Amino acid sequence: MAASLSIVRTVSELREAVARARAAGAGVGFAPTMGALHEGHLSLIRAAKARCGFAVASLFVNPRQFAPHEDFDRYPRTEAADAALLASAGCDLLFAPEREAMYPPGFSTSVHVAEVSAPLEGEMRPHFFGGVATVVTKLLLQAQADAAFFGEKDYQQLLVVKRLARDLDIPTEIIGCPTLREQDGLALSSRNAYLSADERRIAGRLNLVLHEAIKAAHAGEPIARAEADAAHRLLGAGFSSVDYVAIRHAETLEPITDLAAPARILAAAWLGKTRLIDNMAV
Amino acid sequence: MAASLSIVRTVSELREAVARARAAGAGVGFAPTMGALHEGHLSLIRAAKARCGFAVASLFVNPRQFAPHEDFDRYPRTEAADAALLASAGCDLLFAPEREAMYPPGFSTSVHVAEVSAPLEGEMRPHFFGGVATVVTKLLLQAQADAAFFGEKDYQQLLVVKRLARDLDIPTEIIGCPTLREQDGLALSSRNAYLSADERRIAGRLNLVLHEAIKAAHAGEPIARAEADAAHRLLGAGFSSVDYVAIRHAETLEPITDLAAPARILAAAWLGKTRLIDNMAV
Repeated sequence: MAASLSIVRTVSELREAVARARAAGAGVGFAPTMGALHEGHLSLIRAAKARCGFAVASLFVNPRQFAPHEDFDRYPRTEAADAALLASAGCDLLFAPEREAMYPPGFSTSVHVAEVSAPLEGEMRPHFFGGVATVVTKLLLQAQADAAFFGEKDYQQLLVVKRLARDLDIPTEIIGCPTLREQDGLALSSRNAYLSADERRIAGRLNLVLHEAIKAAHAGEPIARAEADAAHRLLGAGFSSVDYVAIRHAETLEPITDLAAPARILAAAWLGKTRLIDNMAV
Repeated sequence: MAASLSIVRTVSELREAVARARAAGAGVGFAPTMGALHEGHLSLIRAAKARCGFAVASLFVNPRQFAPHEDFDRYPRTEAADAALLASAGCDLLFAPEREAMYPPGFSTSVHVAEVSAPLEGEMRPHFFGGVATVVTKLLLQAQADAAFFGEKDYQQLLVVKRLARDLDIPTEIIGCPTLREQDGLALSSRNAYLSADERRIAGRLNLVLHEAIKAAHAGEPIARAEADAAHRLLGAGFSSVDYVAIRHAETLEPITDLAAPARILAAAWLGKTRLIDNMAV
């Protein structure tokens, strides 16, 4: 099964392989990743394969979306295992560029998305969306896929990517895919690997607390109260700190005072040195 | 002749026409313009046609590259005359979008090129290259041409466009074309239409002074002296003010102290309310 997965490291090899797939009549679906793959990533590959016929994944731990104090150096790198998982999920091609292929000497262009990048993760991680927007623009233009698949787990990132693809006229459809979860509700994430056994037990409470906050908001509790209660519960459950719990407009992420328009609850909280995020439709 | 030029106003019409040309076996060459066309623009169209087979022009006066005090409102708009000129030069397709098609409500993405954007025009017109980089990225991704043609008249812009196309992996080759000039050396520019008869007589001195500065630099005059002398001569010739005369590294636009590496002289100067730019290889 693994024999069907080709691995390429340069943009020209990537484009040649994509062109061959197209010449053979396939559509091309693409799932950018930072590796350390789990079932959530594989669900993106399966969606790409099912919808397009030819599935491409990328693996690149993008230094530009980590701040100097963040976990770039310890971010898990497991390419061989990732390749085996991709092959098992039906992935046809893995693009795993070196850093120099992505950011050669003299590289000096950046893509910035205002508005939907600004709140929540944008406040907490000021480097983050600039790095994401730039590398995703590059990856989309490198792969030239018909559709690209991103997890709703990184919901704000999905909105940023949709925005930049629309604004820059990138001819690739951006498709959001549902978050996969452990039995206790914990959203699958490469960073879950950082959790100790104790932390792992607490981690499942994050999703539970979001469920409770949604219920409270629907029962008429004011939005601000539901948010504050949820943050309080997370600390009570053993989270070290809470960056935010926010019920926002589902498209703009602007604050709301009622549930008239589609809403989303989003949260980020710390367990020791590990930062977890989650979100759900309200 | 004009019957052979199609005019489209939406990205989907543009892409359909480009796809038809490709299906018919043609390559696609593209020249983005702000209209008010002159022979300089037409030389880009002729180059696109000769090299690629199918020539596309765009006409869009991009509000995002004008500062509030600049000449966006009075910038000449002459679409019917432009279309006739394009047809006469062998252009196959004109993409002339409305502002709303380029920047729909909610638009919030921008492209920024550091380094080569920073000096010269970047200092004098801080809005300019941000607006240029964003709209050129959009236009290149809208047209999806094999090659795009830009005049060396806007030399720093050409470097910015080359940089962003390389950095963002835009699959379009960027080709610079020589500046066309009037008999007295004045570079063709849509803004020359603003000049009074008196100003027009003085305008030709800009290129002459750059020639003299190049000669002086080759004769061993220190770079800084050659630049200062040239600025002084422009004021003596009747220019109202001089934004810069600069001899720079031809690729990075960084200051240089000798002519060991390829160099470029660039200048911007005012005649009344009209700002003229010019540049030449040293």
